[in-house]
Amino acid sequence: MRYVSFEKDGKAFLGVREGGAIRTLGEATLEELLAQGVDLNKWAATQQGGRVEAEDGLKFLPPLRRPTKILCVGLNFKDHSKESNFEQPDYPTMFLRLNTSLVAHNAPIVRPRVSDSLDYEGEIAVVLGKGGRHIRKEDALSHVAGYALFNDASVREYQFKTPQWTMGKNFDGTGAFGPDFVTADELPPGVKGLRLETRLNGEVVQSASTDDMVFDVETLIVLLSEALTLEAGDVIVSGTPSGVGWARNPRLLMRHGDVCEVSVAGIGTLRNEIIDEAA
Amino acid sequence: MRYVSFEKDGKAFLGVREGGAIRTLGEATLEELLAQGVDLNKWAATQQGGRVEAEDGLKFLPPLRRPTKILCVGLNFKDHSKESNFEQPDYPTMFLRLNTSLVAHNAPIVRPRVSDSLDYEGEIAVVLGKGGRHIRKEDALSHVAGYALFNDASVREYQFKTPQWTMGKNFDGTGAFGPDFVTADELPPGVKGLRLETRLNGEVVQSASTDDMVFDVETLIVLLSEALTLEAGDVIVSGTPSGVGWARNPRLLMRHGDVCEVSVAGIGTLRNEIIDEAA
Repeated sequence: MRYVSFEKDGKAFLGVREGGAIRTLGEATLEELLAQGVDLNKWAATQQGGRVEAEDGLKFLPPLRRPTKILCVGLNFKDHSKESNFEQPDYPTMFLRLNTSLVAHNAPIVRPRVSDSLDYEGEIAVVLGKGGRHIRKEDALSHVAGYALFNDASVREYQFKTPQWTMGKNFDGTGAFGPDFVTADELPPGVKGLRLETRLNGEVVQSASTDDMVFDVETLIVLLSEALTLEAGDVIVSGTPSGVGWARNPRLLMRHGDVCEVSVAGIGTLRNEIIDEAA
Repeated sequence: MRYVSFEKDGKAFLGVREGGAIRTLGEATLEELLAQGVDLNKWAATQQGGRVEAEDGLKFLPPLRRPTKILCVGLNFKDHSKESNFEQPDYPTMFLRLNTSLVAHNAPIVRPRVSDSLDYEGEIAVVLGKGGRHIRKEDALSHVAGYALFNDASVREYQFKTPQWTMGKNFDGTGAFGPDFVTADELPPGVKGLRLETRLNGEVVQSASTDDMVFDVETLIVLLSEALTLEAGDVIVSGTPSGVGWARNPRLLMRHGDVCEVSVAGIGTLRNEIIDEAA
């Protein structure tokens, strides 16, 4: 099942893709359904009276607008760690995103006034349907409700102003998320063996297999839950491969009018235009 | 006005201190009141029928249990940056805490099974009553609703396993917060000129003036809001001075049965016993 969140007449709706159209399911949010432990494959079928919408002109929202946590994994592809001049740690390099940084599919990613160092990072977001602590590896994937695409757009100058990356990862309008939330049953377990591709203005800038993740989805869930309580609705943004603009010579930065796309077969394409922050 | 959150018969209540007692105000939370823009000094007076409770045996809750953000400032006292072998950055070193890490006054701080490297960090938490973006310095303090104490207890081995401190700062049961939320009018503007003291088993281990903060409360609000939208209910944990256990020779670690207290005159004392995580 492929869920989308969108806005119509100032209201937020949930829908599912059916054929080439979207069936509207009402105003419940994915956060609410996940917190309630609803089976998302069965639930959509029980919802009646939905309208069918064409996608053209639909104003998407992030699949979850206020996730309980946004846990981001840095340095999770060896070639990206290398291009970024970091030693490869033997434990996940975690940073956190705030909900205020999220933007939807087709919404603009914002290049802030204060810095000309906006970079792309194509990634896969793992959405948890069940929480827990000290989760065992053999149980880990049963905690995953589904997957979505993420562009972890980064303001590099602010990422590296101090020893902590937090500020460069949390500018408003930089965490692109969506369009579809795809239930886990529609994808290979742990999204293994999928090709992740990022394009800037149509040109491929990142291309890698999810098999090259240093810490796979199961391991991330095990290690995170060793330290903290995971909750239904938590999002794990699983890391970007090599090819980022900041590591290139000359540097490749995202500028007003650029279009950045992140694609994974079976999950979809997340598309965002870059705009300058208003003066 | 001094607000406290506490639990009675399995329900969460808000109260205000009056004389030596606490007047119960009902089940509204500080998060809700702040989001609604309620004037917290006036609001308590409009609430009738509250009971007066003795503090003995009261089960406190963190003043806010699910803050919209917990923005933590690292390296905000020069002598702490030095003892930690970090160069002093000229921009705030930010990391984030998750709500799942919070514990109340008198509740145990948990030393996790996986590491014997639990350390204290006494701090002041700034709670915002009004959000905004690109907030000007002259307006910054008008965004502050009040202050509380925080013990940013850190699992040092996990803090330094990778370039990012996130995991060491987010173990369950390590972010002690409370007991009182003190409205800003009861304290010096920007909590300037106050002495912050941390005691471990009664011995003073940290003692510093808030005047020694590298980035004061106003500057933090200005710089954070340059990048992201602040919201009513956001918490800024403003940084710890020197004296942490990890920087001592020999190292001073917190162990089962220890008692850690953080005090600031006018805000109060936050007390937590340390317990080992259950096997």
